[in-house]
Amino acid sequence: MFQYVLAADLGGTNLRMAVVARDGHIVHRERCSTPRSGDASLIVSTIANLVERCKQYIGSERFIVGIAAPIIMDLAAGRIGTSPNLPMLDGFPLRSEVEKMVGVTTILENDATAAAIGEHWLGASRKIDNSICLTLGTGVGGGLILNGQPHRGPDGTAGEIGHISVEPEGHPCGCGSQGCLEQYSSATAVVRMTRELAINMQSDLAETDDLSAEVIYNAAMNGDKVAILAYGKMGYYLGIALADLINILNPEVIILAGGLAAGWDAFVGETREQVEKRAFRVPATRVKLVRAELGDDAGMLGVASVAFSSIVQGQKGT
Amino acid sequence: MFQYVLAADLGGTNLRMAVVARDGHIVHRERCSTPRSGDASLIVSTIANLVERCKQYIGSERFIVGIAAPIIMDLAAGRIGTSPNLPMLDGFPLRSEVEKMVGVTTILENDATAAAIGEHWLGASRKIDNSICLTLGTGVGGGLILNGQPHRGPDGTAGEIGHISVEPEGHPCGCGSQGCLEQYSSATAVVRMTRELAINMQSDLAETDDLSAEVIYNAAMNGDKVAILAYGKMGYYLGIALADLINILNPEVIILAGGLAAGWDAFVGETREQVEKRAFRVPATRVKLVRAELGDDAGMLGVASVAFSSIVQGQKGT
Repeated sequence: MFQYVLAADLGGTNLRMAVVARDGHIVHRERCSTPRSGDASLIVSTIANLVERCKQYIGSERFIVGIAAPIIMDLAAGRIGTSPNLPMLDGFPLRSEVEKMVGVTTILENDATAAAIGEHWLGASRKIDNSICLTLGTGVGGGLILNGQPHRGPDGTAGEIGHISVEPEGHPCGCGSQGCLEQYSSATAVVRMTRELAINMQSDLAETDDLSAEVIYNAAMNGDKVAILAYGKMGYYLGIALADLINILNPEVIILAGGLAAGWDAFVGETREQVEKRAFRVPATRVKLVRAELGDDAGMLGVASVAFSSIVQGQKGT
Repeated sequence: MFQYVLAADLGGTNLRMAVVARDGHIVHRERCSTPRSGDASLIVSTIANLVERCKQYIGSERFIVGIAAPIIMDLAAGRIGTSPNLPMLDGFPLRSEVEKMVGVTTILENDATAAAIGEHWLGASRKIDNSICLTLGTGVGGGLILNGQPHRGPDGTAGEIGHISVEPEGHPCGCGSQGCLEQYSSATAVVRMTRELAINMQSDLAETDDLSAEVIYNAAMNGDKVAILAYGKMGYYLGIALADLINILNPEVIILAGGLAAGWDAFVGETREQVEKRAFRVPATRVKLVRAELGDDAGMLGVASVAFSSIVQGQKGT
């Protein structure tokens, strides 16, 4: 019986690890930069290094390792399918390689699914059986909790909400499709749409070099018309996707997580308007649209929860 | 312990009933016209009348009654939410009223969810844990089987696939939204799109008064360009919605049921092309797109299956 999970969040920029106790308490944290060059084995050794640093904080207690990562699973094939932000992981058996190097049981979870599970354990959807968590960041991820259980599907790929089509012949997407939600409701998209709108409209943002979703949010709050329009467009398309999800799944709660959720005031009005127009009345009345409560810890707490509750459905060596 | 379910399929035109045995064998069938005028109590008495006619075929055996109907549920409120094709049922407690009149336990299920359950019991998705059934008819309905169980959601409204947005500012929909799948991939939509296309293009169909999806299908098979384009458009939008569902739910099988599925050869090429372009490779490779096997019996067998397996989740007097 293990007492701790060393839970990693493998992001495109940072690799973080938390020592999580059975009650969800975080005992210790470590952080380093994610290796961006080299091959996948460098990520394995970096995770192993963080494990070594964390181990000293748990004495002689037993532990297992959990990893939340921005990956498309391929559970049946026993490896990662694709990893758009960390392409060296494409097709790599990350779980088994970390397990081999560290010498303890290791589990792997899609980061947005992990966030949904974390929020269900200790955050915005606790004690609620049907919830959807969207991570609005560089991209858009999603995780589903249905009837109290994570829904991963037979390949572990379920919840790819960022790739719902919201504009059938819209902006090309890295996934090979076009008009995906991620192309309109991610931080990357808000910056792109602001640049597009600033070409034809007067805005101080047109001359800003280091444009970010946060800079644009502040401009919107100060009345910049281009910034307001960009966030409005982001909220419009998000509302279309949420209405789809409400009509398909009848969730009780939809949680918005990730850095872009901080722009809530700038987009949520348009999002609610689209949901009200497009979703059926009964499930639209039921669902609560809320912000995440666990911040950056959601993914690590989620993968820890999976480990503690031993609901590692279908993990076959990814 | 009951041995039979008297299973009704309440359609916009016909009200059918089957006497279903525990092994799925249909012992007897009855049929009459659906009352289109008058109030909801006329539907109750018509169902009661079919029950009387069916009862003589089961001797002294016990039975319960099941009803599959084209309704948006409102389980929490204990009644039907809305019923777009039979508006006299809006807000009506059909289940409890039939139960009261007939004197035996009665269950009610959305017709597309019932079709999904029927196909899972005895049809195209038997022994498969994750499947989606679309009914392509006058409208577009949907039912979900996830992890071997019907997913209805807390209000019973889940599976409203016909109201996925496929064209954000597209054709107005009866649900209050616009650009819903139902406005492009239903039999009604194929007729409308054919009329729209025939205005600017040469086609024998322009002078056909009694245009139907079947007439247009035959014209497409005979090389009529307008008919080919209309079915192509129907297949294109269907492919967009299926790619959404594949990315969100990672199903193993998607079943196309309903009258319009008979036009398979005229639309499925375009549908597959959109799925290939828009869905992630791993779940798109997994999923099989197939035609329903149970025809018009799927809904009746589905509601019978719910009764026999006593998985009447959350039925509270609708």
